[in-house]
Amino acid sequence: MSGSVRADADTRPSGGRDAGRAGGEPRLGVVTAAPDLSPGTLPLRPELVGLEPYGAPQLDVPVLLNVNENPYAPSEQVVADVAAAVAEATRGLNRYPDRDFVGLRADLAAYLEVESGVHRGPEQMWAANGSNEIMLHVLQAFGGPGRTALSFAPTYSMYPEYARDTSTAWVVGRRAEDFTLDPEHARATIAAHAPSVVLLASPNNPTGTALPLDTVRAVLDAAARVPGGCVVVVDEAYGEFRRAGTPSALELLADHPHLAVSRTMSKAFGLAGARVGYLSASRELVDALRVVRLPYHLSAVTQAVARAALRHAPELMAQVGSLRAERDALVTWLRTRGLQAADSDANFVLFGRFDDRQAVWQGLLDRGVLVRVTGPEGWLRVSVGTPAETAAFQDALVEVTGR
Amino acid sequence: MSGSVRADADTRPSGGRDAGRAGGEPRLGVVTAAPDLSPGTLPLRPELVGLEPYGAPQLDVPVLLNVNENPYAPSEQVVADVAAAVAEATRGLNRYPDRDFVGLRADLAAYLEVESGVHRGPEQMWAANGSNEIMLHVLQAFGGPGRTALSFAPTYSMYPEYARDTSTAWVVGRRAEDFTLDPEHARATIAAHAPSVVLLASPNNPTGTALPLDTVRAVLDAAARVPGGCVVVVDEAYGEFRRAGTPSALELLADHPHLAVSRTMSKAFGLAGARVGYLSASRELVDALRVVRLPYHLSAVTQAVARAALRHAPELMAQVGSLRAERDALVTWLRTRGLQAADSDANFVLFGRFDDRQAVWQGLLDRGVLVRVTGPEGWLRVSVGTPAETAAFQDALVEVTGR
Repeated sequence: MSGSVRADADTRPSGGRDAGRAGGEPRLGVVTAAPDLSPGTLPLRPELVGLEPYGAPQLDVPVLLNVNENPYAPSEQVVADVAAAVAEATRGLNRYPDRDFVGLRADLAAYLEVESGVHRGPEQMWAANGSNEIMLHVLQAFGGPGRTALSFAPTYSMYPEYARDTSTAWVVGRRAEDFTLDPEHARATIAAHAPSVVLLASPNNPTGTALPLDTVRAVLDAAARVPGGCVVVVDEAYGEFRRAGTPSALELLADHPHLAVSRTMSKAFGLAGARVGYLSASRELVDALRVVRLPYHLSAVTQAVARAALRHAPELMAQVGSLRAERDALVTWLRTRGLQAADSDANFVLFGRFDDRQAVWQGLLDRGVLVRVTGPEGWLRVSVGTPAETAAFQDALVEVTGR
Repeated sequence: MSGSVRADADTRPSGGRDAGRAGGEPRLGVVTAAPDLSPGTLPLRPELVGLEPYGAPQLDVPVLLNVNENPYAPSEQVVADVAAAVAEATRGLNRYPDRDFVGLRADLAAYLEVESGVHRGPEQMWAANGSNEIMLHVLQAFGGPGRTALSFAPTYSMYPEYARDTSTAWVVGRRAEDFTLDPEHARATIAAHAPSVVLLASPNNPTGTALPLDTVRAVLDAAARVPGGCVVVVDEAYGEFRRAGTPSALELLADHPHLAVSRTMSKAFGLAGARVGYLSASRELVDALRVVRLPYHLSAVTQAVARAALRHAPELMAQVGSLRAERDALVTWLRTRGLQAADSDANFVLFGRFDDRQAVWQGLLDRGVLVRVTGPEGWLRVSVGTPAETAAFQDALVEVTGR
C-alpha cells in the first residue's frame, strides 16, 4: 500500500456531482463569488468558491441503482402506523419536541440489542437527521480548526465534506489493492498525523469491504496513543447487510470510551427519506455531542416516524436476507463475465475495471439504468435492487460492454 | 448607548440552561474532559469543556410561557391533512428526498407573497430544520475561522452558539436603553469590526423590538462597505406578530443581494415541533447555502408536513390577531401594575425590573407558571398564551410580587 496523501481527489465521484438534474428544478449553477454584486460582495469562504453542492444526480430513470437505497417500499401496514404516529405528534406540534429524544434513544438501544446482541443504555445513544449530521456533530465536538480528521481511501466521498464544513484538516491513508486496511499502515498513519478523529467505514463505501475487529482494535490502540486524544468512528451505515460471521464494532464499545459506532435507518430499514442516523458510544462521548447539536434538531415528527418504524423492524428488514443473496449472486455473475467485483458486506457492489468508466455509466443510463461513478479510476458502483432491477442492469451491462 | 463588547455574557439566560429536566430523561450532567478515561482521553474542543447543552428547561408545568410557543394546537382538520400527506410520503420513504425541496420552496415563496406582498422566486428561498440550522448554514458559508459575526445586545441567546459552532469570532454592539438600535452606533460598530455576517433580530428576542427599515438600511449600507463583503441576516422569526404599520425587511430584498430575511413555521404557524425554518435572499446567497448544507438535510416527511401546513396557512394563523391583542393588553396590564414592559412586536413581553428575578421566576414556577430568565439583569420574558394562561400568569405574578 502506498503512503498517506494529504488530498481527497480519488475519493470524490468524478462526473457524478449534480451532472444531471430532476425536471422542474430551478437552474442553479456553479457558485461563484459574484464579484459584480452591488452594493455588497458576498463574503463566500474562499474554499467554497466554484464548488457545486454535493450529491449524486437525481435523475428520472426507470432503474435507480446509484445511491444504495433499499428497493423495497414500506408496506401499507407500516404506512398506516407511521401516519397514525404522526397524526398523534401533530396534535402537539405547536410545542417544541423533546430535545433529548429520550424515547427514541431507548428504542434504538433496544433495536441494537436485538440486531447485534450488544446491550447499550439510552444515554449511550445519539441520533440526528441522517448519519451525515451525526458526523457533523462528532467533528464539531472533536475536530475543528487546528485539528485533523483521518480516513483511508478509497472511502465515502462525504467524509472530506464533513471536515471542510467544520474547518478540520483532512488526511487520507491508503487501503490495499483489495480495499482491505493494513493494521500496520493504519497505526503508522495515525502516529504520523495525530488526528483527533478517525473515520472508518465498515462495510466501506464504495468498496463494500468490512473491517475485521482486529483491525479496528489496532486503530483504537493507535488512537489511544494520540496526545490529547482521538475519537474513532466506525461507520456501519450498511452494517445489517454484513455476511454471516462478519462482526460489528458494537462489540468493542464497552471497552473503548473513545469509540463510536454509527448506523442509519436509511439502508436496511429502507427509510432514506426519513433522515434518521444514529450512533452508540460512551456516555462521555454522547454528552459532548449534546453540547454541539442545535437545540431541537430532531423534530417531533422525525421522532414519531422513527419510533413507529422501529416497532416494525422485523418486517422492514425482512428483505435484508434476500438483498444479501442477490448481492452475492451479482458478485458471482460479474466475475463470471470476466469483470472484477469487490467482495461486499453491503447492499452494493464495486465493479470494473473499465478503460472509460464514464462511457459505461452513460451507456447504462441510456438503457434506463443509473449507477454511480465513484471509487478509484476504472470502477463503478451498483446498488442491489429487486431481482427485476438487477436483471435490467445485467442486460444493459452486457449490451454496453459486449460481455 | 455603550460601545461594543467582545463578550456575550449578558445575552445568555442566567440559571435557565437545563436547570431542570423533564421526568424520565437520563441524568446527563455537565460535560467534562474526563481526564480519567482509559485508554484514550476524549479530545473535546477546549471551548466546550464544562458547557451544558443549550436550551430552556423542559419542565412538566401547567402553564408553559417560556419558549414563545403558539398556545393553539393544530385543528383536527390540519392533523388529518398532515397525516395524509405523511402517509403518501411514507410510501416512497425508501428513496432519498428531493435534495433541493423545489416544491416546498415554491410554496414558501407563495406564502410570503400573501403575508407581506413581496414576490420571491423559489430559487430565492431556502429552508432547514429550524431557523437555527438556517443560521448555521449562513455562518458556514460566510463566517468561519478568521471571520467575525456581529449583533447588538441584548438579543437572541443562540447567536453566540452559532458563532461558536462554526469557529466564527463573536462581537456584540449595544442596543439603547429602550432596546432600539441607534443607526450611527450600528454603522460605527460594523466599521470597527468588519464582520462578514451581521445578525439582526426583528422583532428582537427577548425584547420584542422591531427595527425601522431606515435602521436596517443603515446596517446594509455599512455592511456594503466592509472589505470582502458582509451578509446581513434579519431574523424575523416573530415577524407575523408585528403591529400594523411595522414593515418587514422582505421589502428590502430586491435591492440588497447581501441581505437575507429568515422566518420560521415555529411561531405564528404554531409548528415548533415540526422544525421548519426558512430564508429568502438573492439567488447568489441561497446558492452558497446549497454548498454547505448536508445533502438531504430536509426529510421527505418534513417537506410533506410543511407543505400540508402551508395549505392551511389562513387557518393556522387565525390566532395571530388575537395573540397580538392579548400581547398589547398584557403590556398595558404590566405597566398598570407599576412594572416596566418593553414595547413588543412579537408573541412575548419582556418585563421587570426585579431586584431578584430568579426569585420571581421561582415564585411563578411554584404557582405552575413557567417563564424565562433571559435578557438584561432584572428582566423576565413571558410568552403570550391563551387568555386562561395569561390570567394564570397575572394571578401568580400578583401573588409573587404583591402588585
